[in-house]
Amino acid sequence: MVQCVHTVKELRNILKPLKAQGKTVGLVPTMGALHPGHATLISQSSKQNDITVVSVFVNPTQFGPNEDFDAYPRTLDNDLKVVEGAGGDIVFAPSPKEMYPSEDMTWVEVTGNITKVLCGKTRPIHFRGVATVVSKLFNIVAPTKAYFGQKDAQQVEVLKRMVKDMFFDLELVVVPIAREQSGLARSSRNTYLSDEEKSQATVLCAALNLALESFKSGNNDLESIINITKQKISSSEIADIEYVECYGLPGLYELKDKIQAPSLLAVAVRFGNTRLIDNIILE
Amino acid sequence: MVQCVHTVKELRNILKPLKAQGKTVGLVPTMGALHPGHATLISQSSKQNDITVVSVFVNPTQFGPNEDFDAYPRTLDNDLKVVEGAGGDIVFAPSPKEMYPSEDMTWVEVTGNITKVLCGKTRPIHFRGVATVVSKLFNIVAPTKAYFGQKDAQQVEVLKRMVKDMFFDLELVVVPIAREQSGLARSSRNTYLSDEEKSQATVLCAALNLALESFKSGNNDLESIINITKQKISSSEIADIEYVECYGLPGLYELKDKIQAPSLLAVAVRFGNTRLIDNIILE
Repeated sequence: MVQCVHTVKELRNILKPLKAQGKTVGLVPTMGALHPGHATLISQSSKQNDITVVSVFVNPTQFGPNEDFDAYPRTLDNDLKVVEGAGGDIVFAPSPKEMYPSEDMTWVEVTGNITKVLCGKTRPIHFRGVATVVSKLFNIVAPTKAYFGQKDAQQVEVLKRMVKDMFFDLELVVVPIAREQSGLARSSRNTYLSDEEKSQATVLCAALNLALESFKSGNNDLESIINITKQKISSSEIADIEYVECYGLPGLYELKDKIQAPSLLAVAVRFGNTRLIDNIILE
Repeated sequence: MVQCVHTVKELRNILKPLKAQGKTVGLVPTMGALHPGHATLISQSSKQNDITVVSVFVNPTQFGPNEDFDAYPRTLDNDLKVVEGAGGDIVFAPSPKEMYPSEDMTWVEVTGNITKVLCGKTRPIHFRGVATVVSKLFNIVAPTKAYFGQKDAQQVEVLKRMVKDMFFDLELVVVPIAREQSGLARSSRNTYLSDEEKSQATVLCAALNLALESFKSGNNDLESIINITKQKISSSEIADIEYVECYGLPGLYELKDKIQAPSLLAVAVRFGNTRLIDNIILE
């Protein structure tokens, strides 16, 4: 039976005796609205750790003023079922006041190119909010391992850097993108899509795969790979491209004319009012 | 015998088995140049914990471009003796490269009035550097308790806020100001003072005590208390006042006309080229 707690104190009271027994703890930080993509993270954690904690917190500080914080789906009852089904043990669902106890915030911020490219360009405060809330969760849970989806590829790179710079004593585990049969990357924001938009959005995965094929067949020209991706996405008339960009891994370093393996090819595209992201590693 | 280590890996290798045995760990973060003020922190930690770790690191990110980073005294051999004499067990003396592994920094920053008043006005990046390096040390050592001197009163308030906001699982212990017989607050920067300056600088402690007496005898007028302090300091001809300010505790909240107990009365004053700080709690 999954236990659901809402305060740091309750959570620590549960974890303390378990840790004293030497149990390992996996943390899966989420914003709730759990779907089968999250379930793969939770079930991987549950296989690799004695205890799995899933945090469910729609973090206000990672949303910009014109973003979908209020509209973001909140489905705690269903989330508890997903966690149970995937083998999780504890859901930590705090209030914003619990996570942000002071009026003036303490921020954790990763600086440099890594937070300025891709989503960082149009979402300037997003990664500061992510780094801050994830740091808090790390300090609250002190997990052995923490699980993040490759779907949020830039988030993964930012958090890897943060873990290294701040000496968090844990292993960050990156889980591959979960996709629907159609190829559409699973996302809580897919619930915003109409049937038509959902069908059109499958072009993202198709475009990324086309680029990967081209790269694998010997095309390492940056501009050409970007163009192949853009052209394919534009074959959907309702696709409104925010970016199609490619950076070197690890750390999202700037590429010159040629793509070095491994590199991240990432896209953000609007279908109607819904902004979707997807990515693939060229290697 | 005190052990001195220079890398995070060595330190963790030593601490891991001790923690597995359930030993408590006290952390005393310092910039070295240890004096009897530091010794009181170390000996308090050694009484309250199984193991005491003293970090010795002149943290570059808390010095402004025109401050004394290069000139700051570095006396590791003597520091080891002070730590040994005070009952410390391990000295952690990392290089800047060890503590800041990436070119682009990850920062921890406490925002709001608390970092803008007092020293925050003339040292705008100082507390960001302090919060960042102390967060790293907390993550590296994961201490049971961490010890800081009341001498750096604003630092104490900033770190209390940070510990609360970021959910560091430790107790922050504040140790009273250690003073020379003359009343001069002990500081690594006192070594910069000439004999004459050192003698004149005793006016700081005298002025703070005068203000406390006045407050205790019923004077809670903010302006009057500030003026009493300033006038006494100005009785030294070489004293160059940077600030004499008073804020409410905890959190350094702004006072209106009247001083509420407890409040912090704090001063920063130059004697020659040396900037000294001192403070007293009005309660």
